[in-house]
Amino acid sequence: MALTLYDLEVSGNCYKVRLLSSLLGIPLELKPVDFMAGAHKQSPLIELNPFGEVPILVDGDVILRDSQAILIYIARKWGGEAWLPTDAASMARVAQWLFVAGNEIARGPNDARLHDKFGYKLDAMLARQKAARILTLMNTHLTSHTWLALERPTIADIACMPYIGIGHEGGVPLDAYPAVSAWIARIKALTGFISMPAL
Amino acid sequence: MALTLYDLEVSGNCYKVRLLSSLLGIPLELKPVDFMAGAHKQSPLIELNPFGEVPILVDGDVILRDSQAILIYIARKWGGEAWLPTDAASMARVAQWLFVAGNEIARGPNDARLHDKFGYKLDAMLARQKAARILTLMNTHLTSHTWLALERPTIADIACMPYIGIGHEGGVPLDAYPAVSAWIARIKALTGFISMPAL
Repeated sequence: MALTLYDLEVSGNCYKVRLLSSLLGIPLELKPVDFMAGAHKQSPLIELNPFGEVPILVDGDVILRDSQAILIYIARKWGGEAWLPTDAASMARVAQWLFVAGNEIARGPNDARLHDKFGYKLDAMLARQKAARILTLMNTHLTSHTWLALERPTIADIACMPYIGIGHEGGVPLDAYPAVSAWIARIKALTGFISMPAL
Repeated sequence: MALTLYDLEVSGNCYKVRLLSSLLGIPLELKPVDFMAGAHKQSPLIELNPFGEVPILVDGDVILRDSQAILIYIARKWGGEAWLPTDAASMARVAQWLFVAGNEIARGPNDARLHDKFGYKLDAMLARQKAARILTLMNTHLTSHTWLALERPTIADIACMPYIGIGHEGGVPLDAYPAVSAWIARIKALTGFISMPAL
Protein backbone atom coordinates (compact mmCIF):
# COMPACT_ATOMS: atom_id res chain seq x y z
CA MET A 1 0.00 0.00 0.00
CA ALA A 2 1.33 3.43 -0.91
CA LEU A 3 2.47 5.92 1.70
CA THR A 4 -0.14 8.66 1.43
CA LEU A 5 0.28 12.33 2.30
CA TYR A 6 -2.70 14.64 2.50
CA ASP A 7 -0.92 17.64 1.16
CA LEU A 8 -1.03 21.38 0.53
CA GLU A 9 1.62 22.65 -1.86
CA VAL A 10 2.10 26.06 -0.19
CA SER A 11 2.31 24.61 3.32
CA GLY A 12 5.81 24.52 4.75
CA ASN A 13 4.68 21.78 7.11
CA CYS A 14 3.57 19.58 4.21
CA TYR A 15 6.73 20.47 2.29
CA LYS A 16 9.04 19.27 5.07
CA VAL A 17 7.43 15.82 4.79
CA ARG A 18 7.80 15.83 1.01
CA LEU A 19 11.43 16.96 1.39
CA LEU A 20 12.47 14.23 3.84
CA SER A 21 10.74 11.60 1.71
CA SER A 22 12.62 12.82 -1.34
CA LEU A 23 15.97 12.85 0.49
CA LEU A 24 15.32 9.25 1.58
CA GLY A 25 14.04 8.19 -1.86
CA ILE A 26 10.64 7.13 -0.52
CA PRO A 27 7.70 7.51 -2.94
CA LEU A 28 4.75 9.45 -1.54
CA GLU A 29 1.27 9.39 -2.96
CA LEU A 30 0.18 13.03 -2.65
CA LYS A 31 -3.49 13.79 -2.10
CA PRO A 32 -3.98 17.54 -2.51
CA VAL A 33 -6.38 18.98 0.07
CA ASP A 34 -8.83 21.70 -0.97
CA PHE A 35 -7.78 24.02 1.83
CA MET A 36 -9.76 27.04 0.60
CA ALA A 37 -12.94 24.94 0.75
CA GLY A 38 -12.04 23.84 4.27
CA ALA A 39 -11.72 20.16 3.36
CA HIS A 40 -9.30 19.65 6.28
CA LYS A 41 -12.07 20.65 8.72
CA GLN A 42 -14.66 18.28 7.26
CA SER A 43 -15.30 14.58 6.84
CA PRO A 44 -13.44 12.45 5.88
CA LEU A 45 -10.24 14.37 6.81
CA ILE A 46 -11.47 15.50 10.22
CA GLU A 47 -11.78 11.82 11.20
CA LEU A 48 -8.17 11.25 10.16
CA ASN A 49 -7.03 14.33 12.09
CA PRO A 50 -9.43 15.79 14.68
CA PHE A 51 -7.10 18.81 14.94
CA GLY A 52 -8.31 19.84 11.46
CA GLU A 53 -4.85 20.43 9.99
CA VAL A 54 -2.56 19.18 7.27
CA PRO A 55 -0.29 17.35 6.72
CA ILE A 56 -1.77 13.95 7.51
CA LEU A 57 0.24 10.80 6.75
CA VAL A 58 -1.41 7.42 6.20
CA ASP A 59 0.73 4.28 6.09
CA GLY A 60 -1.58 1.28 6.31
CA ASP A 61 -3.20 1.45 9.73
CA VAL A 62 -0.82 4.15 10.95
CA ILE A 63 -2.45 7.59 10.71
CA LEU A 64 -0.38 10.55 11.86
CA ARG A 65 -0.89 14.28 12.25
CA ASP A 66 1.76 16.95 13.11
CA SER A 67 4.56 17.50 10.64
CA GLN A 68 7.35 17.01 13.19
CA ALA A 69 5.86 13.72 14.41
CA ILE A 70 5.58 12.60 10.79
CA LEU A 71 9.27 13.40 10.25
CA ILE A 72 10.07 11.25 13.29
CA TYR A 73 8.01 8.40 11.83
CA ILE A 74 9.64 8.49 8.41
CA ALA A 75 13.14 8.88 9.86
CA ARG A 76 12.67 5.99 12.28
CA LYS A 77 11.03 3.67 9.75
CA TRP A 78 13.24 4.28 6.70
CA GLY A 79 16.21 6.37 7.80
CA GLY A 80 18.12 4.00 10.09
CA GLU A 81 20.28 5.98 12.49
CA ALA A 82 21.03 8.73 9.97
CA TRP A 83 18.29 11.32 10.33
CA LEU A 84 17.14 10.58 13.88
CA PRO A 85 19.59 8.52 15.94
CA THR A 86 18.22 6.48 18.85
CA ASP A 87 20.92 7.08 21.46
CA ALA A 88 19.55 9.32 24.18
CA ALA A 89 21.82 12.35 23.77
CA SER A 90 21.66 12.51 19.97
CA MET A 91 17.91 12.00 19.87
CA ALA A 92 17.36 14.73 22.48
CA ARG A 93 19.66 17.12 20.61
CA VAL A 94 17.61 16.61 17.44
CA ALA A 95 14.37 16.89 19.40
CA GLN A 96 15.33 20.27 20.88
CA TRP A 97 15.15 21.72 17.38
CA LEU A 98 11.97 19.89 16.44
CA PHE A 99 10.31 21.76 19.29
CA VAL A 100 11.78 25.03 18.01
CA ALA A 101 10.09 24.26 14.68
CA GLY A 102 6.80 23.60 16.45
CA ASN A 103 6.93 26.64 18.72
CA GLU A 104 9.34 29.51 18.05
CA ILE A 105 9.31 29.14 14.26
CA ALA A 106 5.59 28.35 14.07
CA ARG A 107 4.72 31.41 16.17
CA GLY A 108 7.38 33.56 14.46
CA PRO A 109 7.98 33.51 10.68
CA ASN A 110 5.15 31.07 10.03
CA ASP A 111 2.54 33.24 11.78
CA ALA A 112 3.89 36.36 10.05
CA ARG A 113 3.42 34.64 6.67
CA LEU A 114 -0.05 33.38 7.60
CA HIS A 115 -0.99 37.00 8.30
CA ASP A 116 0.62 38.60 5.26
CA LYS A 117 -0.02 35.95 2.60
CA PHE A 118 -3.22 34.26 3.76
CA GLY A 119 -4.97 37.00 5.75
CA TYR A 120 -5.03 35.22 9.11
CA LYS A 121 -6.13 37.52 11.93
CA LEU A 122 -3.18 37.45 14.28
CA ASP A 123 -0.62 39.83 15.72
CA ALA A 124 1.85 40.20 12.85
CA MET A 125 4.08 42.60 14.79
CA LEU A 126 4.44 40.09 17.63
CA ALA A 127 5.13 37.32 15.12
CA ARG A 128 7.91 39.38 13.51
CA GLN A 129 9.40 40.11 16.95
CA LYS A 130 9.42 36.39 17.68
CA ALA A 131 10.92 35.74 14.24
CA ALA A 132 13.77 38.17 14.92
CA ARG A 133 14.49 36.52 18.27
CA ILE A 134 14.68 32.95 16.93
CA LEU A 135 16.61 34.01 13.82
CA THR A 136 19.17 35.78 15.99
CA LEU A 137 19.58 32.66 18.14
CA MET A 138 19.83 30.42 15.07
CA ASN A 139 22.29 32.71 13.33
CA THR A 140 24.59 32.67 16.36
CA HIS A 141 24.31 28.89 16.63
CA LEU A 142 24.94 28.35 12.92
CA THR A 143 27.98 30.59 12.99
CA SER A 144 29.80 27.80 14.84
CA HIS A 145 27.78 24.77 13.69
CA THR A 146 27.29 23.39 10.18
CA TRP A 147 23.97 21.75 11.02
CA LEU A 148 21.49 22.47 13.81
CA ALA A 149 21.70 19.36 15.99
CA LEU A 150 24.55 17.04 15.04
CA GLU A 151 27.62 16.96 12.80
CA ARG A 152 25.41 15.97 9.87
CA PRO A 153 21.98 16.93 8.57
CA THR A 154 19.07 15.51 10.57
CA ILE A 155 15.33 16.01 10.70
CA ALA A 156 16.11 19.02 12.93
CA ASP A 157 17.29 20.87 9.82
CA ILE A 158 14.38 19.61 7.71
CA ALA A 159 11.85 20.69 10.35
CA CYS A 160 13.27 24.17 10.90
CA MET A 161 14.24 25.25 7.40
CA PRO A 162 10.97 25.70 5.44
CA TYR A 163 9.32 28.58 7.29
CA ILE A 164 12.68 30.30 7.70
CA GLY A 165 13.34 29.97 3.98
CA ILE A 166 9.97 31.40 2.94
CA GLY A 167 9.87 33.98 5.74
CA HIS A 168 10.17 36.79 3.18
CA GLU A 169 6.52 36.09 2.36
CA GLY A 170 5.74 37.30 5.88
CA GLY A 171 8.06 40.29 5.97
CA VAL A 172 10.92 38.30 7.51
CA PRO A 173 13.88 38.47 5.11
CA LEU A 174 17.22 36.86 5.95
CA ASP A 175 19.62 39.69 5.02
CA ALA A 176 20.70 40.18 8.63
CA TYR A 177 21.29 36.45 9.20
CA PRO A 178 24.08 35.29 6.88
CA ALA A 179 24.81 32.06 8.79
CA VAL A 180 21.16 31.08 8.44
CA SER A 181 21.25 31.78 4.70
CA ALA A 182 24.40 29.69 4.32
CA TRP A 183 22.76 26.81 6.21
CA ILE A 184 19.75 26.92 3.89
CA ALA A 185 22.13 26.79 0.92
CA ARG A 186 23.74 23.66 2.41
CA ILE A 187 20.33 22.00 2.73
CA LYS A 188 19.53 22.91 -0.87
CA ALA A 189 22.74 21.17 -1.97
CA LEU A 190 21.76 17.81 -0.42
CA THR A 191 21.27 14.92 -2.85
CA GLY A 192 17.56 14.46 -3.47
CA PHE A 193 16.62 18.00 -2.43
CA ILE A 194 13.31 19.31 -3.77
CA SER A 195 11.97 22.83 -3.35
CA MET A 196 8.59 24.50 -2.71
CA PRO A 197 7.01 27.71 -4.04
CA ALA A 198 8.82 30.90 -2.90
CA LEU A 199 11.75 29.01 -1.38
CA MET B 1 28.36 12.73 38.47
CA ALA B 2 24.88 13.70 39.54
CA LEU B 3 22.12 14.42 37.06
CA THR B 4 21.51 18.13 37.56
CA LEU B 5 18.31 20.04 36.88
CA TYR B 6 18.25 23.83 36.91
CA ASP B 7 14.82 24.11 38.37
CA LEU B 8 11.94 26.42 39.21
CA GLU B 9 9.38 24.93 41.60
CA VAL B 10 6.33 26.70 40.14
CA SER B 11 7.25 25.87 36.52
CA GLY B 12 5.17 23.10 34.99
CA ASN B 13 7.98 22.50 32.51
CA CYS B 14 10.48 21.89 35.31
CA TYR B 15 7.93 19.80 37.20
CA LYS B 16 7.42 17.40 34.30
CA VAL B 17 11.15 16.60 34.41
CA ARG B 18 11.02 16.07 38.18
CA LEU B 19 7.93 13.88 37.74
CA LEU B 20 9.41 11.56 35.12
CA SER B 21 12.61 11.23 37.14
CA SER B 22 10.59 10.28 40.20
CA LEU B 23 8.49 7.74 38.28
CA LEU B 24 11.72 6.16 37.02
CA GLY B 25 13.43 6.36 40.40
CA ILE B 26 16.29 8.51 39.10
CA PRO B 27 17.83 10.93 41.63
CA LEU B 28 18.02 14.53 40.42
CA GLU B 29 20.20 17.20 41.92
CA LEU B 30 17.95 20.26 41.87
CA LYS B 31 19.54 23.68 41.47
CA PRO B 32 16.85 26.30 42.12
CA VAL B 33 17.06 29.21 39.68
CA ASP B 34 16.40 32.74 40.94
CA PHE B 35 13.85 33.46 38.25
CA MET B 36 12.65 36.77 39.70
CA ALA B 37 16.25 38.07 39.54
CA GLY B 38 16.49 36.89 35.93
CA ALA B 39 19.26 34.38 36.62
CA HIS B 40 18.11 32.32 33.60
CA LYS B 41 18.91 35.26 31.31
CA GLN B 42 22.42 35.83 32.70
CA SER B 43 25.75 34.09 32.92
CA PRO B 44 26.36 31.27 33.71
CA LEU B 45 22.89 29.93 32.79
CA ILE B 46 22.62 31.79 29.49
CA GLU B 47 25.71 29.88 28.33
CA LEU B 48 24.03 26.59 29.22
CA ASN B 49 20.83 27.64 27.44
CA PRO B 50 21.04 30.57 25.02
CA PHE B 51 17.22 30.55 24.87
CA GLY B 52 17.22 31.93 28.43
CA GLU B 53 14.72 29.46 29.82
CA VAL B 54 14.41 26.71 32.41
CA PRO B 55 14.51 23.75 32.79
CA ILE B 56 18.09 22.95 31.84
CA LEU B 57 19.42 19.42 32.34
CA VAL B 58 23.12 18.68 32.74
CA ASP B 59 24.33 15.07 32.62
CA GLY B 60 28.12 15.12 32.31
CA ASP B 61 28.86 16.70 28.93
CA VAL B 62 25.22 16.51 27.80
CA ILE B 63 23.48 19.87 28.29
CA LEU B 64 19.83 20.06 27.25
CA ARG B 65 17.16 22.73 27.12
CA ASP B 66 13.43 22.28 26.34
CA SER B 67 11.36 20.23 28.74
CA GLN B 68 10.01 17.87 26.10
CA ALA B 69 13.49 17.15 24.73
CA ILE B 70 14.66 16.47 28.29
CA LEU B 71 11.80 13.98 28.77
CA ILE B 72 12.95 12.23 25.58
CA TYR B 73 16.51 12.07 26.93
CA ILE B 74 15.55 10.62 30.30
CA ALA B 75 13.08 8.16 28.78
CA ARG B 76 15.61 6.93 26.22
CA LYS B 77 18.52 6.69 28.63
CA TRP B 78 16.80 5.13 31.66
CA GLY B 79 13.29 4.08 30.59
CA GLY B 80 13.97 1.28 28.13
CA GLU B 81 11.01 0.90 25.78
CA ALA B 82 8.45 1.80 28.42
CA TRP B 83 8.02 5.55 28.31
CA LEU B 84 9.20 6.23 24.74
CA PRO B 85 9.31 3.17 22.48
CA THR B 86 11.67 3.19 19.52
CA ASP B 87 9.49 1.56 16.87
CA ALA B 88 8.45 4.16 14.32
CA ALA B 89 4.68 4.14 14.84
CA SER B 90 4.76 4.14 18.65
CA MET B 91 7.42 6.82 18.82
CA ALA B 92 5.51 9.05 16.40
CA ARG B 93 2.27 8.54 18.35
CA VAL B 94 4.01 9.67 21.52
CA ALA B 95 5.68 12.55 19.69
CA GLN B 96 2.37 13.90 18.38
CA TRP B 97 1.40 14.71 21.96
CA LEU B 98 4.82 16.08 22.89
CA PHE B 99 4.24 18.70 20.20
CA VAL B 100 0.78 19.42 21.64
CA ALA B 101 2.51 20.11 24.97
CA GLY B 102 4.98 22.43 23.23
CA ASN B 103 2.41 24.30 21.17
CA GLU B 104 -1.33 24.06 21.93
CA ILE B 105 -0.90 23.63 25.69
CA ALA B 106 1.97 26.12 25.94
CA ARG B 107 -0.01 28.76 24.06
CA GLY B 108 -3.28 27.84 25.80
CA PRO B 109 -3.49 27.10 29.54
CA ASN B 110 0.20 27.85 30.14
CA ASP B 111 -0.02 31.35 28.60
CA ALA B 112 -3.27 32.04 30.47
CA ARG B 113 -1.52 31.19 33.75
CA LEU B 114 1.56 33.26 32.84
CA HIS B 115 -0.79 36.21 32.40
CA ASP B 116 -2.95 35.72 35.48
CA LYS B 117 -0.38 34.47 37.99
CA PHE B 118 2.87 36.09 36.83
CA GLY B 119 1.68 39.23 35.04
CA TYR B 120 3.05 38.40 31.59
CA LYS B 121 1.80 40.82 28.94
CA LEU B 122 0.00 38.57 26.50
CA ASP B 123 -3.49 38.07 25.14
CA ALA B 124 -5.19 36.15 27.97
CA MET B 125 -8.49 35.94 26.10
CA LEU B 126 -6.79 34.30 23.12
CA ALA B 127 -4.92 31.94 25.45
CA ARG B 128 -8.19 30.85 27.08
CA GLN B 129 -9.77 30.31 23.65
CA LYS B 130 -6.84 28.10 22.70
CA ALA B 131 -7.12 26.32 26.05
CA ALA B 132 -10.79 25.54 25.43
CA ARG B 133 -10.01 24.17 21.98
CA ILE B 134 -7.25 21.80 23.08
CA LEU B 135 -9.16 20.71 26.21
CA THR B 136 -12.18 19.86 24.07
CA LEU B 137 -10.00 17.79 21.72
CA MET B 138 -8.27 16.06 24.64
CA ASN B 139 -11.53 15.36 26.45
CA THR B 140 -12.97 13.70 23.35
CA HIS B 141 -9.80 11.68 22.87
CA LEU B 142 -9.63 10.62 26.52
CA THR B 143 -13.27 9.54 26.50
CA SER B 144 -12.19 6.54 24.44
CA HIS B 145 -8.52 6.26 25.47
CA THR B 146 -7.02 5.60 28.90
CA TRP B 147 -3.72 7.32 28.06
CA LEU B 148 -2.90 9.89 25.39
CA ALA B 149 -0.61 8.00 23.01
CA LEU B 150 -0.44 4.26 23.74
CA GLU B 151 -2.18 1.65 25.89
CA ARG B 152 0.02 2.63 28.81
CA PRO B 153 1.38 5.87 30.28
CA THR B 154 4.21 7.45 28.28
CA ILE B 155 6.05 10.75 28.28
CA ALA B 156 3.12 12.07 26.21
CA ASP B 157 1.03 12.04 29.39
CA ILE B 158 3.84 13.47 31.51
CA ALA B 159 4.43 16.31 29.02
CA CYS B 160 0.78 17.32 28.63
CA MET B 161 -0.56 16.97 32.17
CA PRO B 162 1.11 19.72 34.24
CA TYR B 163 -0.25 22.88 32.61
CA ILE B 164 -3.67 21.25 32.20
CA GLY B 165 -3.70 20.31 35.88
CA ILE B 166 -2.77 23.80 37.11
CA GLY B 167 -4.85 25.60 34.47
CA HIS B 168 -7.20 26.89 37.17
CA GLU B 169 -4.41 29.33 38.06
CA GLY B 170 -5.02 30.88 34.63
CA GLY B 171 -8.80 30.84 34.65
CA VAL B 172 -8.98 27.48 32.91
CA PRO B 173 -10.83 25.06 35.24
CA LEU B 174 -11.58 21.49 34.19
CA ASP B 175 -15.25 21.21 35.24
CA ALA B 176 -16.39 20.85 31.64
CA TYR B 177 -13.79 18.18 30.84
CA PRO B 178 -14.48 15.12 33.00
CA ALA B 179 -12.41 12.71 30.88
CA VAL B 180 -9.41 15.02 31.27
CA SER B 181 -9.90 15.14 35.04
CA ALA B 182 -10.13 11.34 35.21
CA TRP B 183 -6.91 11.05 33.20
CA ILE B 184 -5.10 13.39 35.62
CA ALA B 185 -6.34 11.22 38.49
CA ARG B 186 -4.86 8.14 36.78
CA ILE B 187 -1.49 9.89 36.46
CA LYS B 188 -1.64 10.87 40.14
CA ALA B 189 -2.15 7.20 41.02
CA LEU B 190 1.07 6.05 39.31
CA THR B 191 3.73 4.56 41.58
CA GLY B 192 6.35 7.21 42.28
CA PHE B 193 4.07 10.15 41.47
CA ILE B 194 5.07 13.49 42.97
CA SER B 195 3.04 16.71 42.80
CA MET B 196 3.74 20.42 42.38
CA PRO B 197 2.17 23.54 43.93
CA ALA B 198 -1.50 24.09 42.93
CA LEU B 199 -1.81 20.70 41.22
